[in-house]
Amino acid sequence: MYSRQETVIPPVAILHFDHPPGDCHIKYGYSKGGNYYIIKVASGFPNNPSIGIPAGNGLMLLFDKTTGAPVCILLDEGYLTDLRTAAAGAIAAKYLAPKHISCIGIIGTGAQAYYQLCLLTSVTDCREVMIWGRDRSKALQFSKNPDLKSFRIEIAEDLDQLTAACNLIVTTTSSSTPLLFAQQIQKGTHITAIGADDFGKQELDAQIFKKADRIIVDSRSQCSIFGDTASALREGLIALNHMIELGSIIENPSLGRTNNDQITIADLTGVAIQDLQIAVAVIRRSLPHNNWQ
Amino acid sequence: MYSRQETVIPPVAILHFDHPPGDCHIKYGYSKGGNYYIIKVASGFPNNPSIGIPAGNGLMLLFDKTTGAPVCILLDEGYLTDLRTAAAGAIAAKYLAPKHISCIGIIGTGAQAYYQLCLLTSVTDCREVMIWGRDRSKALQFSKNPDLKSFRIEIAEDLDQLTAACNLIVTTTSSSTPLLFAQQIQKGTHITAIGADDFGKQELDAQIFKKADRIIVDSRSQCSIFGDTASALREGLIALNHMIELGSIIENPSLGRTNNDQITIADLTGVAIQDLQIAVAVIRRSLPHNNWQ
Repeated sequence: MYSRQETVIPPVAILHFDHPPGDCHIKYGYSKGGNYYIIKVASGFPNNPSIGIPAGNGLMLLFDKTTGAPVCILLDEGYLTDLRTAAAGAIAAKYLAPKHISCIGIIGTGAQAYYQLCLLTSVTDCREVMIWGRDRSKALQFSKNPDLKSFRIEIAEDLDQLTAACNLIVTTTSSSTPLLFAQQIQKGTHITAIGADDFGKQELDAQIFKKADRIIVDSRSQCSIFGDTASALREGLIALNHMIELGSIIENPSLGRTNNDQITIADLTGVAIQDLQIAVAVIRRSLPHNNWQ
Repeated sequence: MYSRQETVIPPVAILHFDHPPGDCHIKYGYSKGGNYYIIKVASGFPNNPSIGIPAGNGLMLLFDKTTGAPVCILLDEGYLTDLRTAAAGAIAAKYLAPKHISCIGIIGTGAQAYYQLCLLTSVTDCREVMIWGRDRSKALQFSKNPDLKSFRIEIAEDLDQLTAACNLIVTTTSSSTPLLFAQQIQKGTHITAIGADDFGKQELDAQIFKKADRIIVDSRSQCSIFGDTASALREGLIALNHMIELGSIIENPSLGRTNNDQITIADLTGVAIQDLQIAVAVIRRSLPHNNWQ
């Protein structure tokens, strides 16, 4: 719907905080043919874990598109955002990862690292995982998560080891400086970059985009403003017409990977239509007696 | 706080709808010294009354500025927005209206017409009112509202009559074309313009701004984008440095009206700090056992 221009999704509204550091993203919009509009609030306060609460929080508001009346408030504390983000990662892997996945590389050890890995099981049989995080103790903790026991999870010494072993890599950090560099990326690799969803965040060195055979984004407009692709665009390494939307790949998979040697990148910044759809899915399941559309 | 640059208030996020027509404004931000951030949702669907519900709706979300945790959700259906908008109108009249108010002119017959008039009682003893609306039957209904029985309310035949009789005029319509024109405005008049809070809305002909001795706005940045002042600015009739913020007038009233012959305009588009303050006022009153700041 989004890539067919069947939605109305204005630019993300963002608040930044200094003391303590944090941010809040408001994503909002609607599908032209639907009955609702969504306002989704997602916050990230990296110091939260030091006081025993998760960094992420948030909620979803669904409104009647014909009257403005609130339809439901989902106090999901960011869970649905985590889930729809991981779902987009799984879809990117489904369409873009090479046929044979040798090992899944996960960069970062937070909630997205967990959910991305969980939802990848719906699109690949590979259960070999290599994980890397700045904090090795968190990587160790991640590798011992009993909910992930269907995976064989190895902790990477460094990102050279991870990029050498893995041909499906998911980056899920809030890094402000590049973690992966062009010379590390093997042919036949697919990278899904999730973390850089704001100004000043970057996980992939811009040169990687020059090396990539296909650059996929969830939103051309959003990924021109922030995300890893925006850096490559600003540096003139790629042009806007190199960016193919994931929605276009779903409609025409031949726009994506055409052989197992290509390097593909999916840069996902998260679009309000995903929030709308997961909120509607929740109310449909929760209140099946209503005729939700 | 706002005019002292002690707040962080990004541009308003707006959704527009076509079938049926409507809009939704998201105002959000925080005061640097405060504990909360606000996200306020206000919608207007002009066809709602035809199905028996008010045009306006909305809610307020208050979050902890140090963790992102939701503090409270006020399902006020737009009431608090109406109230804080009327409070700003009363403050504008307090600082800018001439000493002797002969008659209060209210243009429009909706919720803001009602609340503006109600809150003006806190800043003037004048109880003479003239009202004008496109729909005379609504003006009649307004004039008979028992909650307004402390006023003597006359229905104006036209806006010439209203502008001749009234030296404190409040415009509260969602008009997209100017209703008041420069030749109608008598010396010594103060106008508070409330209605034009979005692109394409306009209540005052831009020439009025050229005639005005003082132009007051709630937000220079917002009133440069939309509101009546923005039209005058775009037409080159005024410059940005003619626009004085209401917050600056409160700190230094001599920036406002200095004699009873001046024409003053206050163009109010509504700023998120007002939403933050009224939401905090509500939780302080509702939950007095907490130490809200």
